[in-house]
Amino acid sequence: MRMDRLIEQKRDGHALTESEIRFFIDGYTAGQIPDYQVAALLMAIYFQGMNRAETVNLTRAMAESGDMLDLSDICDYAIDKHSSGGVGDKTSLVALPLVASFGVPIAKMSGRGLGPTGGTVDKLESISGFNVNLSEAEFRRVARDCGIVIAGQTKSLAPADGLLYALRDVTGTVASRPLIASSIMSKKLAAGASGIVLDVKVGRGAFMKTLEEARALARTMAQIGVDAGRDMVALLSDVNQPLGVAVGNALEVAEAVKTLRGEGPADFHRHCVEVAAQMLRLAGTGERWAELEETRAEVDQVLKSGAALEHLQRMVKAQGGDVSQIEDIRKLPQARLRYNVHARQSGAIAAILADRVAWATLSLGAGRRTKEDEIDHAVGIEVFANVGDEVAAGDLLMTVHANDDGSLQTALEELGGAVAYSASAVEPLPLFHGVVDGREL
Amino acid sequence: MRMDRLIEQKRDGHALTESEIRFFIDGYTAGQIPDYQVAALLMAIYFQGMNRAETVNLTRAMAESGDMLDLSDICDYAIDKHSSGGVGDKTSLVALPLVASFGVPIAKMSGRGLGPTGGTVDKLESISGFNVNLSEAEFRRVARDCGIVIAGQTKSLAPADGLLYALRDVTGTVASRPLIASSIMSKKLAAGASGIVLDVKVGRGAFMKTLEEARALARTMAQIGVDAGRDMVALLSDVNQPLGVAVGNALEVAEAVKTLRGEGPADFHRHCVEVAAQMLRLAGTGERWAELEETRAEVDQVLKSGAALEHLQRMVKAQGGDVSQIEDIRKLPQARLRYNVHARQSGAIAAILADRVAWATLSLGAGRRTKEDEIDHAVGIEVFANVGDEVAAGDLLMTVHANDDGSLQTALEELGGAVAYSASAVEPLPLFHGVVDGREL
Repeated sequence: MRMDRLIEQKRDGHALTESEIRFFIDGYTAGQIPDYQVAALLMAIYFQGMNRAETVNLTRAMAESGDMLDLSDICDYAIDKHSSGGVGDKTSLVALPLVASFGVPIAKMSGRGLGPTGGTVDKLESISGFNVNLSEAEFRRVARDCGIVIAGQTKSLAPADGLLYALRDVTGTVASRPLIASSIMSKKLAAGASGIVLDVKVGRGAFMKTLEEARALARTMAQIGVDAGRDMVALLSDVNQPLGVAVGNALEVAEAVKTLRGEGPADFHRHCVEVAAQMLRLAGTGERWAELEETRAEVDQVLKSGAALEHLQRMVKAQGGDVSQIEDIRKLPQARLRYNVHARQSGAIAAILADRVAWATLSLGAGRRTKEDEIDHAVGIEVFANVGDEVAAGDLLMTVHANDDGSLQTALEELGGAVAYSASAVEPLPLFHGVVDGREL
Repeated sequence: MRMDRLIEQKRDGHALTESEIRFFIDGYTAGQIPDYQVAALLMAIYFQGMNRAETVNLTRAMAESGDMLDLSDICDYAIDKHSSGGVGDKTSLVALPLVASFGVPIAKMSGRGLGPTGGTVDKLESISGFNVNLSEAEFRRVARDCGIVIAGQTKSLAPADGLLYALRDVTGTVASRPLIASSIMSKKLAAGASGIVLDVKVGRGAFMKTLEEARALARTMAQIGVDAGRDMVALLSDVNQPLGVAVGNALEVAEAVKTLRGEGPADFHRHCVEVAAQMLRLAGTGERWAELEETRAEVDQVLKSGAALEHLQRMVKAQGGDVSQIEDIRKLPQARLRYNVHARQSGAIAAILADRVAWATLSLGAGRRTKEDEIDHAVGIEVFANVGDEVAAGDLLMTVHANDDGSLQTALEELGGAVAYSASAVEPLPLFHGVVDGREL
């Protein structure tokens, strides 16, 4: 087999066979195929796409390029979730303890974030001492002892994905559906999940700007999972405005704790209920959690009762974190400066542009522009209004939490055009735009 | 400027600016831009193409990546020719001495061949002692003393092209019109020509299989030259069958000598007259050689008279070659085995497939499959028939010159289906399919 022929095949619109894809992934992971040939193939894939079989074969080859986690000693059925990343999305911090509180073990490996705010493990590191770098033995021990563990991905998890992503990042080949889908799903398959709930974000604050794009990506990812023998469901959720109030790492941990106490923002609360209910539906056997409407009500009850908070506390303790910061969220990192943004006029909120909020948060230092950047856990933005709300001039809309005047100034400039008003009433935005059910693919 | 942004620009179908192209070529030549980013850009160019301005800017940047030859001390007007390569094409060996015999100095740098037979310098190396590796000083001295010099390209000539070609060769990005055109024309621009006659081959024995493709390539190359201030003309010539009789290095040198004596095959003779007349038209000033029909007649007379042979002999001597091999072509390298192929039936020759002849010649060892291959100068094939000829069963069609039984056998298998017969009369193939005149672009 020759890599140059393989590039030409794809360039000319022909499908690659499973053995050709294995040759490419195994050869690249082993350092036997040079970056430049892979870069050319990736660009050919960008233009010619991949069919369902190719995409599944690519994902499996990537997953199997490293260790395949076996969680059967921890649980009968491993349930996982993945979010494509949205502004203010701290759902894992709530939905995972929530599901665990139903007796469904959670053993999750999660990536770091690149963009406006951190990923789930970055957010958890807002808690003093919290250790996300667990050995596999520690990972299994915490999962067994607490019923829940969240750790960073080990380097041996789908190493082909790490190599490919780094190359795509500098060769203009990130925005390709089969490549995005295989990147995400290869890690999910390798991390040992039997069922996966995908939360695919769509809108101004997401990578996918249109519902068509998001639905197509959701379908592709769900197809990969189904073809690899996993139970799959994908939610299409809105991020034209931020989810919940808090955007920024420690602020989001605080909001997750409030939500686990039953005191979270209504939109975020509902979002977590939906994700948890879908996870339980996949994890349930027989009649158990088969009826979504009933499960939602059950989950809502548990969330309102505050009972799931205990699972978060247990995990924080087991992973070396300072539980007092969960018991009293004022002990979480605090930024030095707070700046309140007020409504400039009265009327209905017509837009709170999630992308503007995202860039402002990044300016404050809450996220990473490059992989090497350090995250400032304390900074961020609280957004108190939602699209459709009626406000009066002077009402508090946002609080910006900054650690220096320069970044505060930049953030405020970014936020300048973020809010739009309307004299007439405005419909609230939906939380979800639809669902892709793996059973129908 | 950032290379990843540049890749994205081209990927999304936007034209690159002159400074972006300079950044890419200069950075790549200097080793500052990695192969993998260039490979991705090349594949994006493969899919999105380049407009006229981009192609010209790319070519100029490639030409100027190394030394720009200044031939003004050798001649007032430097005339050059380039063939895209056809089976049996030894035109340079005749047309260049022919033009030189009109008092128009020829100072040509020529590439080596990759494919069925060698390039012009490979063919010249059939002559014992002939040195194609001249220093710039030697090159200029021979040009001044003899009025003609043909040497290999120096490494400092358009180094960006060498780098890009090596990368394209292994990344499925060879077959891109702007990349092919810029590769050829960058070397022509750097080699100091004021006027260039392009001989773009079309047909089964050429890279361009259809007249549309060949015409498009010819137009692109001629446009580049015109926009860079050169006088340009491109001939579209047929290679569905071999040009002339001889295919193979020493055999082609012998045929060139015969043609310079006025004893060459009619088709090849006419082809050389046309190329030389076009070169003279570009090199002429005022009324001189302005009328093609008159120039053709003049050139034909000189060729028939044998007067131009002296210029070849002079150059061979000046470049260290054994002139006795030109005086007596039987002294050129001879293959050990000769095998005659006869007509299997009577009728009109309907086809002599140039690509089959090419592969057979390559099997004999006359060309290179990879850059590292050694050429066997003695081997090759003489093809005595042309499409349209009436033959009787048993007539001699070809003589195969081989140096071992194995390669002879392989060559004969390749030649098996090369000749087709027809019971009814067959039109001869045209020599030329058209002309692209730079004055009209």
